[in-house]
Amino acid sequence: MNFAPLKNDRFLRALRRQPVDATPVWIMRQAGRYLPEYRATRARAGSFLALAKTPELACEVTLQPLDRFELDAAILFSDILTVPDAMGLGLYFAEGEGPKFERPIRTQADVDRLAVPDMAQELGYVIDAVTLIRRELQGRVPLIGFSGSPWTLACYMVEGGGSENFSRIKAMALNEPKALHQLLEVTTDAVIAYLAAQRAAGAQALQVFDTWGGVLSPRLYREFSLRYMARIAAELDRGQGAENTPLILFGKGNAAYLEELASTGAEALGVDWLVDLGEARARTGGRVALQGNLDPITLYADADTIRREVATTLESYGHGPGHVFNLGHGVSPDMNPELVRVLVDAVHEHSARIYSI
Amino acid sequence: MNFAPLKNDRFLRALRRQPVDATPVWIMRQAGRYLPEYRATRARAGSFLALAKTPELACEVTLQPLDRFELDAAILFSDILTVPDAMGLGLYFAEGEGPKFERPIRTQADVDRLAVPDMAQELGYVIDAVTLIRRELQGRVPLIGFSGSPWTLACYMVEGGGSENFSRIKAMALNEPKALHQLLEVTTDAVIAYLAAQRAAGAQALQVFDTWGGVLSPRLYREFSLRYMARIAAELDRGQGAENTPLILFGKGNAAYLEELASTGAEALGVDWLVDLGEARARTGGRVALQGNLDPITLYADADTIRREVATTLESYGHGPGHVFNLGHGVSPDMNPELVRVLVDAVHEHSARIYSI
Repeated sequence: MNFAPLKNDRFLRALRRQPVDATPVWIMRQAGRYLPEYRATRARAGSFLALAKTPELACEVTLQPLDRFELDAAILFSDILTVPDAMGLGLYFAEGEGPKFERPIRTQADVDRLAVPDMAQELGYVIDAVTLIRRELQGRVPLIGFSGSPWTLACYMVEGGGSENFSRIKAMALNEPKALHQLLEVTTDAVIAYLAAQRAAGAQALQVFDTWGGVLSPRLYREFSLRYMARIAAELDRGQGAENTPLILFGKGNAAYLEELASTGAEALGVDWLVDLGEARARTGGRVALQGNLDPITLYADADTIRREVATTLESYGHGPGHVFNLGHGVSPDMNPELVRVLVDAVHEHSARIYSI
Repeated sequence: MNFAPLKNDRFLRALRRQPVDATPVWIMRQAGRYLPEYRATRARAGSFLALAKTPELACEVTLQPLDRFELDAAILFSDILTVPDAMGLGLYFAEGEGPKFERPIRTQADVDRLAVPDMAQELGYVIDAVTLIRRELQGRVPLIGFSGSPWTLACYMVEGGGSENFSRIKAMALNEPKALHQLLEVTTDAVIAYLAAQRAAGAQALQVFDTWGGVLSPRLYREFSLRYMARIAAELDRGQGAENTPLILFGKGNAAYLEELASTGAEALGVDWLVDLGEARARTGGRVALQGNLDPITLYADADTIRREVATTLESYGHGPGHVFNLGHGVSPDMNPELVRVLVDAVHEHSARIYSI
């Protein structure tokens, strides 16, 4: 494919731990309900799933935050549960509730029926959206593709939707570990194929969201979450040399495992706000780039406070390459877009000052 | 006061890091809705608050789990929010929802009105319950008194109830740190007076529940949560020598701060399931006892799995004194009391085997 040359490579340079003129910034859920233009497109689409499954609309909302803010990366607009949906679980959204599956995985027979979906057939709408977005970006910034981690997908697949305490999947992990490993193996195969297809379609970086690894005890985290992310990092075709497509492993509650995550071969780790970036950097010893990690709730504070907290986060990481600024988790629907602008601009202004000292 | 001599001192010995014949065990929320006899008393009381505010009924439900299981400690049945209620915030329970305050703290003027409540006057029902329970225990096991941590109480006081993201109190921490510190100072004074009054009334150990410290970034945790628990540990009169009443600092998500918590002078730390007990022990170097830390969700697994997980937790702590077995958080209403029995018995049986090796 013949895409326009990249004009802003701060994000990719930071992921490769190369010097930058200012710290790149993007924001998890930057295309979302806090933006009135997103709400307008969503209303036009009729439903969230119609929005996510129509490449032209997914492209439209992906680009919206870039027209407002000086963001250094775009991220594919899609749902985290497209893969299990394509595996036949029947994703739907009940009014006022989160995502749910019509056919959750509860028995060995359910697990036995799971297979890696055909990417072009079952997930073609995502792959098409990636190529369309990459083309429409015209090289402004790089495009990030993504997937949920195998463990996080499995949480929804087994629980049948969101969960307060993850009792079904934890009981499965304890009572029927073999069945859960079988589920995770096939899901990992699917995630690897999905990310590889996004890369082939034009994604310039890839992120795995391990939203729920942090609910596990260390022993179960290593057995059921980390192990499968390590397999993704080892087996995913990310290209080589100049073609290398960096892999970011983001995890809520992953602070205790940064050394182990850095050893997977992933190029970068995304961290939440429960760890000091400077400490995370010291512990990973420059083997990976770090992405994060301002507490999203900071966006409920006032503009001056946001600027101060941005500066504190940048200074916590310190001088030198390898930092991508982000929130520690996603932006919320009731947050003020004008304060997102304050944050994005503060990242560039303060980091440029640091680098020019 | 003249109480019966203590017959089972495993729990207090473990908190003092003295040898025991078997690891003592109690369970957070052991007096609660998972027990049919609790539900019967609760129905008789008419409301949760009537139950918590009537010493005879609070005593009755405190003793119920001891009649069923071979637990090594009793814990005062009370609500975590009695102190802010006594400070005038107006605690109530909306049907099907958690606790709420009629008059949450939102402004500097609200903070200025806060004062340490009179223990005998405003919290006499708790103090009376402590003495009644201690008497009715007749020395079977020690009685634990407790309070919420200043930060955790402040979360409810500012949010006005439970919260998904703690946006109000975090915004206050960032925008108006002085007001929040003033709130925390007076609440800490109240917590110290409350725990001292429970000790004077007969409590033989004291636990501070820092349920929500783990939602804070490290910098804010140290400034707004840890600092006030350290003041409690330093200033609370716990007696001396044989009269010493051990203090346990429990915190969800406190794994990153164990060294600092061990330096407060508290006798023991309660930890959730997100840290390996052996690692916690190595990091705190025998300066404190450790309490925990089986994932409560293990109680949704089958009996054999529970026994195996109990053994793994005990072996993770390893040989030698200083371990009190507990869940990493409370037991849930839909858990099976018969599996709680399996857990309690497994702790004693397996640990006695360890000690006799």
